[in-house]
Amino acid sequence: MAADKEKIPKHWRLKPELVKWAKGQPKVSGEVIENLLDDETRFITNTNSRELIDQMSQGKLTAVQVVSAFCKRAAYCHQICDLLLEIGFDLALSQARECDEYFKKHGKLIGELHGLPFTMKDQFHIEGMPTSAGYIGWIGTFEGKSGSEKYMKYESLLVEQLKSSGAIPIGKTTLATGTWSAITNNNILGYAVNPHNRHLSTGGSSGGEAAMQALRGSCFGFGTDIGGSVSIPAAYQGVYSLKPSTGRISFQGGVKIVAMPAVIGIMGPSLDILQSVFKSTLSTMPWTRDQAVTRMPWQGLCDGGLPKRAHLAFGFLENDGIVTPHPPVARAMRIVKKAMEMADIELVGWYPPSNSEVANIHGSLARGDGCLDVWEALELSEFKSNTLVRKQIYHGFCWNAILISLGSAYATSLNVLDYPSIGIPITVADQHIDTADPNFKPLTSKDAEVMQTYDPGEFHGSPISIQLIGRRQDEERLFAMAKIVQDAVDNLKLAGVDILHC
Amino acid sequence: MAADKEKIPKHWRLKPELVKWAKGQPKVSGEVIENLLDDETRFITNTNSRELIDQMSQGKLTAVQVVSAFCKRAAYCHQICDLLLEIGFDLALSQARECDEYFKKHGKLIGELHGLPFTMKDQFHIEGMPTSAGYIGWIGTFEGKSGSEKYMKYESLLVEQLKSSGAIPIGKTTLATGTWSAITNNNILGYAVNPHNRHLSTGGSSGGEAAMQALRGSCFGFGTDIGGSVSIPAAYQGVYSLKPSTGRISFQGGVKIVAMPAVIGIMGPSLDILQSVFKSTLSTMPWTRDQAVTRMPWQGLCDGGLPKRAHLAFGFLENDGIVTPHPPVARAMRIVKKAMEMADIELVGWYPPSNSEVANIHGSLARGDGCLDVWEALELSEFKSNTLVRKQIYHGFCWNAILISLGSAYATSLNVLDYPSIGIPITVADQHIDTADPNFKPLTSKDAEVMQTYDPGEFHGSPISIQLIGRRQDEERLFAMAKIVQDAVDNLKLAGVDILHC
Repeated sequence: MAADKEKIPKHWRLKPELVKWAKGQPKVSGEVIENLLDDETRFITNTNSRELIDQMSQGKLTAVQVVSAFCKRAAYCHQICDLLLEIGFDLALSQARECDEYFKKHGKLIGELHGLPFTMKDQFHIEGMPTSAGYIGWIGTFEGKSGSEKYMKYESLLVEQLKSSGAIPIGKTTLATGTWSAITNNNILGYAVNPHNRHLSTGGSSGGEAAMQALRGSCFGFGTDIGGSVSIPAAYQGVYSLKPSTGRISFQGGVKIVAMPAVIGIMGPSLDILQSVFKSTLSTMPWTRDQAVTRMPWQGLCDGGLPKRAHLAFGFLENDGIVTPHPPVARAMRIVKKAMEMADIELVGWYPPSNSEVANIHGSLARGDGCLDVWEALELSEFKSNTLVRKQIYHGFCWNAILISLGSAYATSLNVLDYPSIGIPITVADQHIDTADPNFKPLTSKDAEVMQTYDPGEFHGSPISIQLIGRRQDEERLFAMAKIVQDAVDNLKLAGVDILHC
Repeated sequence: MAADKEKIPKHWRLKPELVKWAKGQPKVSGEVIENLLDDETRFITNTNSRELIDQMSQGKLTAVQVVSAFCKRAAYCHQICDLLLEIGFDLALSQARECDEYFKKHGKLIGELHGLPFTMKDQFHIEGMPTSAGYIGWIGTFEGKSGSEKYMKYESLLVEQLKSSGAIPIGKTTLATGTWSAITNNNILGYAVNPHNRHLSTGGSSGGEAAMQALRGSCFGFGTDIGGSVSIPAAYQGVYSLKPSTGRISFQGGVKIVAMPAVIGIMGPSLDILQSVFKSTLSTMPWTRDQAVTRMPWQGLCDGGLPKRAHLAFGFLENDGIVTPHPPVARAMRIVKKAMEMADIELVGWYPPSNSEVANIHGSLARGDGCLDVWEALELSEFKSNTLVRKQIYHGFCWNAILISLGSAYATSLNVLDYPSIGIPITVADQHIDTADPNFKPLTSKDAEVMQTYDPGEFHGSPISIQLIGRRQDEERLFAMAKIVQDAVDNLKLAGVDILHC
């Protein structure tokens, strides 16, 4: 059965008292999870993927060691946060052994993701594992069909691609069933737990994957997105995320839940791993297998270096005109602003067309109630696109509009517009610093309502992200620009600027 | 007013008796139109575009000379076949003068399409010309809105792009109104005339443009296509055509008539001009202006030369399993088969899934009755895509599936699948050669019905095309492969093979 803890090897099962204790802790990320681990597991799972690959390529570490460490950690994560709908540790270890044999025989790695364990939202098929997508009725079936020859045999194209690069699936994460939702909950596992703060939502629908990444239960993971279902949980959990445009990552053989085109997003602990995974899937030329994928290999335009900083400018969206950001979110934006100033990169205020207008269109699309809406949306997006051009928020010879906004703002708009976005965690809410603004004046009645939900104590410790938004199918430049923002923020911190008082 | 012959300069107006005489001729292409022209006009308009550009770049010919010649010829075409909904000769000549001034001043051409006159289906806006799209109600308005400031000011993005490359619009061609249709007819101009045979349809909905190209009234032209509306009229008129995948040529600012995504197709007298125009539009980076365009510059993969012929194979679709081709069409396919054999290029028989199944889906899409059909269509297309792979109809390191089929077969399927296609004229129906097959056995009841419509005398002189079908967004390889097919057919003819008895 799905989510069956029996699939966890006995020596990785936590004692019931320990599970009970951990479930009583408001925050299980950081110290709690780290202290549960033995030294080797802790060491391996805290090493970044590039270093792991490096060690494996030198024979200093085996894929079996890496996969064992992450499976163990993922097993612990699951036991204290209810994150895995499917567990595939046995399969993963056998694939790890194959990786090691390949390396022994050929003296080189299978591919650029050799031996890296990953997890994915239970919306994809992996040979040898069932898929429930959180539906009780799907247990023991292939997408609800009993006796299908595809049951536990069929594999989604993305999984095939990742395996061909050497990556190893270890399990499938929990999700919001039926429709994309802001809360990750289903009748098989119940609620997924936000590891930073049990009292807050993980966000959804890919909240299980975001929580798994926040706890570092695998090297990277996948969610799906029709309206913020990747970027929102990633922001809530403080992990990096890429939501690409449609047509870059194959959805072939994935479970389609609503009519609206969903995209697959990548989550992980760094920009670097997101970029490696994205680049790796493109290197398999998915368009030769799935015609919904755009024939667009990795665009190495920026691989040779970035243009001079003097040419750089970012659009900067401080709020969407409807809702004022909560105090810690506003502070994250100030941190980025300060970092960009220090790096001498121009920020241009961006005042977009009404977000609510776009959000309404998104509703119609998500409900699948007719194609006319699609056209309205497309026309609107042309308007927006022209707005971007008119505002001249981009400079330089090869750089198009890149926009910085709040971590979860414009999530639905981005899907209507098919713009890619990258989420970058910036800071963590602090109840002593991020107090309510006594001078707050609501922009709208919704603004008043939303600000009332802000309780500094309740949000304490919650990660805060910002979001970079690029132009359609411009993921490569978006990655390059995200690195610039990340470097600027890192330099700000290194320079000793107190980000709590930005 | 639209279609107002007053816009034709007096010295280009044909005498009423001459018009009457021409309208009494069953065939006005070839000798009839040529004999109406003076020597200079005949010479210039029969010179290929590459040569015209060459002459202009050496100062041996001016843009004004080129544009005057084509405007005059287009004026004649219109008077005998009712092809122009909008006439823009004055504007064109003034743009031609600008081209010449630019050349004089800078000693170089404006762009790769410098001074080349073009026409386009009246579904695009050109500054200085109205747009009726064939609707009487739109005359004097902007898309039906009276007093709009866009009237005669607004310009479709494609037109801007073409002008920036130096191309010059001279008029807009007639179309089927309201919905894409197999017959080009509207309440402003009535029926467009097929210049090869007045008793046959031009096809539709871009029949006006195809007829204009067949009569060489401009160097190239544009139609739009949701289900064969470019490839079918191009085939009926014996001109070359490209129907690209969505997202390669911008539709921004074009008139959208139905909900289904239409694509813009290019028509002209050679593969070379189609490729130049396609490449030129990409060189303007339309994706920076229109986010519906895929960020995909001209893929020069094949510019460095083609792989060895030993590696080449084409899929070959002799019929679609529903309808047997009429005798001249079957002969065109035999000519190509023979040509490919002579060139030592492998042909692999292709037996696709049911065309009628795909055609049914197309109907639902074109009616815009819901998004679920889209998904069915996409899933079907995945199946087809896999079929293609399984049949291994492609070989070689960079070559994907390219399929040869009848000129108008699979037209609707191609739109459902979003595959690009290129139409190549091969031969002309001959009543003495292409007689009915006494051994014909219908495949289906529809087949019997369709074969009954074949009358060798009625179809005599009708051009017959074949079609090359490529994979999604693979227009560049499709062009390269089309050149191989064209060369093979040319060599067959040069070798003296009697194509009437293939």
